[in-house]
Order: sequence, then structure tokens, then C-alpha cells
Amino acid sequence: MRETRQASGAVRPGGRTARTRAAVLDAARDELEDAGYAGLTLERVAERSGVHLATLYRRWRTVEGLVVDLLGEIGKTRVPIPDTGSLEEDLRILALEIARLYQQPRMRALIEGVVAAAVRSPEASDAWATVIAERNRLAARIVERAVERGELPPGTDGIAVISAVGAPIYYRMLVARGAVDDALAESTAVSVHAGALKGAFTRPAGDPPADGTPSTTP
Amino acid sequence: MRETRQASGAVRPGGRTARTRAAVLDAARDELEDAGYAGLTLERVAERSGVHLATLYRRWRTVEGLVVDLLGEIGKTRVPIPDTGSLEEDLRILALEIARLYQQPRMRALIEGVVAAAVRSPEASDAWATVIAERNRLAARIVERAVERGELPPGTDGIAVISAVGAPIYYRMLVARGAVDDALAESTAVSVHAGALKGAFTRPAGDPPADGTPSTTP
Repeated sequence: MRETRQASGAVRPGGRTARTRAAVLDAARDELEDAGYAGLTLERVAERSGVHLATLYRRWRTVEGLVVDLLGEIGKTRVPIPDTGSLEEDLRILALEIARLYQQPRMRALIEGVVAAAVRSPEASDAWATVIAERNRLAARIVERAVERGELPPGTDGIAVISAVGAPIYYRMLVARGAVDDALAESTAVSVHAGALKGAFTRPAGDPPADGTPSTTP
Repeated sequence: MRETRQASGAVRPGGRTARTRAAVLDAARDELEDAGYAGLTLERVAERSGVHLATLYRRWRTVEGLVVDLLGEIGKTRVPIPDTGSLEEDLRILALEIARLYQQPRMRALIEGVVAAAVRSPEASDAWATVIAERNRLAARIVERAVERGELPPGTDGIAVISAVGAPIYYRMLVARGAVDDALAESTAVSVHAGALKGAFTRPAGDPPADGTPSTTP
């Protein structure tokens, strides 16, 4: 994976500082995959990346600082938003995409680290909440399109529906501490679809969306 | 709260060791409420409890060790399982109970600490997964009763339903990093009820329950 990144990043912009940062983030990702968040220390990342520990302390200060930087990278990766013309199928594909993301040990370790860092550091908490809000906002198009097609009641809160699709997968990882399987994704998509049809996620006109951001309805 | 515990524990068994442990756990809970998991250190718990730091290091070793012990206490508290005769109402009451639990800053800080500790310590992870599994097993009676009454399809997985009720609340706390409100609980209960009626949580006879424990169906 590191090979792929380096090959595709042959004209990596920014010179030495950018190269240092890339080496450190690559090493942090590798450490997470090998040892999980429990094994992530600035010392080990310094050793693995060949970057001086003093540089790491100066630039990232703590493991949480490193995680915030990794999060920025995650935020930039594009996740395809399904648009099959059927809400049930779109939700199913979305749920399976999330499940398969976290079936990768590297991604699961990263997200466990992010959640632990968010609890300890307000900066990490804000960075994480921002990434998730942006992801959910993009995926909420699925719901908006279903409302436009007349599949869902007007006023259905897209963020609430998309959050409900992701929630059981995070619950499995962080609370039940079990494996994320495709069956969980499929069952969640069927359930959330039924709930949305039933109007469980509609809100009165003028009410703010489920994540507390200002309403866009007039 | 500390007063209540001491009053009811007037004949606290175990003498000095038990009193030391109770003082340490009380102090840890108070620290969590005041400073969150980020502020929880053995040094501060020692200072607050008046117990020697060396004793804390010897008995609990790390903050994660302390969290495991707190978890054991949570596991012992009884949570009422609603039995109103209506599945929808039972799920609504259960969701509101969970939401109101985590509307308490002390409980939210504790659970954030537990999740962070579970990521760093396999012991904490096992202790936490055990508490949650036991809670979910008790609450799954709600679903079993609804199946017996003919409200739900046979083969509905109680653990899966109960997990789906809790999941959005944990997601709000740990992922979206927002406030847990009653509206989230109500909307989740309506949605999970619709999903269960639709058969989203049924599993083929003989399949293990959603958390991977052995099946009790013949």
C-alpha cells in the first residue's frame, strides 16, 4: 500500500516538509495496522519513519495530534455515493461500503484510535466531528433524491437517516467489540428503510437537522 | 450520590481493603465528572481519595485498570426492562432510558472513558463487551415477549433489535460528538420498531444470534 501511494505521488508537492509529513503519516498508518492504537507512540512512529523524534514532538506534540492529521487525510478521500434510483438499494450499498471499509484492519484500528483521541482531545473531537458531518452531508443526497422521487415523506431528515445506517456498524466496533459483517449492513439497511418509510426521521418544517446545524428549510 | 452509596452500604463487607477500593472508585467517578476521561490520572485519583498513589499503582496499575473496575460496578446496577404489553412502547421507554442515562455528564464521561480504555486495553475491551452483552441479553426479553405475543415474526433476533435501539445514541456521543436528546431516542424507537415488523432482524433457524454467542434455538 505504501508502494502504491509513493508511485501515485511521484510529483508530491511541497518539498522536504511535505515528504517528512508523508513519511510520518505513512508510518503512523502502518503502526496502527500492526499494533492498533494501543501501540501507537511518537517514539515508534519516529523509528519507523526515520524522522527525528524531536521533529515529531515539535510538529504533532502528541499521538492525538498525529491522529488529527491522519483524519484530515481521510476527509480528503472520496467515497462514492450510490444513486441507483431506489432508496432501499442505495442504503444497502452505502451500508455495505461502510462495513467493508471497517473490515480492513487498518481502517478499524484508525477509527478506534480516532474515537479514543476524540475523548482525550477537543481538537481531535472537532476534527472527527467535522469529517463525519461532511461525509453524512454528502450521503444525505441519497435521502433528498428519494424525497424528490416521492419515495419518502417530505421533511425526512437526510442526516438522521444516514446516521442511522452507520450507527450499528460503529456500535459493533466500539461497544459490542465484535466483527463488522455484511449481514449487519444488510439488516441495518432494511430496517432504516422501513423506518424512513414509516416517517421515523421526518421533522416539523423549520426544525433544525438531526446534527444541530442550522436548518436550510425556509 | 456518594452519600446514598455510603448510607446504603453501612455494613459494607470486607473491611479496610473494601473501604479503600470504594474511596478510590468514588474519587475516579468524581474526577470523570469534573474533568472527563482526559483528566483522569492515577495521581489525581490518589489525591482526591486520600489513598496512597503506590496503592493505586499496585492494585490498578493504569487508568484502564481503574476503568475496568468501574465497569464491574456498572454491570451490577439494575436497569428496569419495560413490559407494557406493546413492543413499540417498550422500545420507546428503553431508548429514553438509555438516552437519559447519557444525558448525565458523569455517565457520558464514564462511557467515553470506557470506550477509549477498551481501544487501549484488551482487558477493558473484554470487560466492556461483557457488560454490554449482559445488558442486551436482559433487554432482549422485550423482543422475545413481542414474538410470543405474535407482534413480531418468529426468529427475530432480540440482541440485534436491542443493539439497533442503542446504536444511534452511542453514535451521537462517540462519532457525531453531539448531545443525546430525547428526540433521537423517540425517532430511533419508531424506526427500529418498523424495521423489526418488516423482518429486518429475523435470522434463519439455527443461525447464531447477532453477537456471535451460541444459538438457543434447537
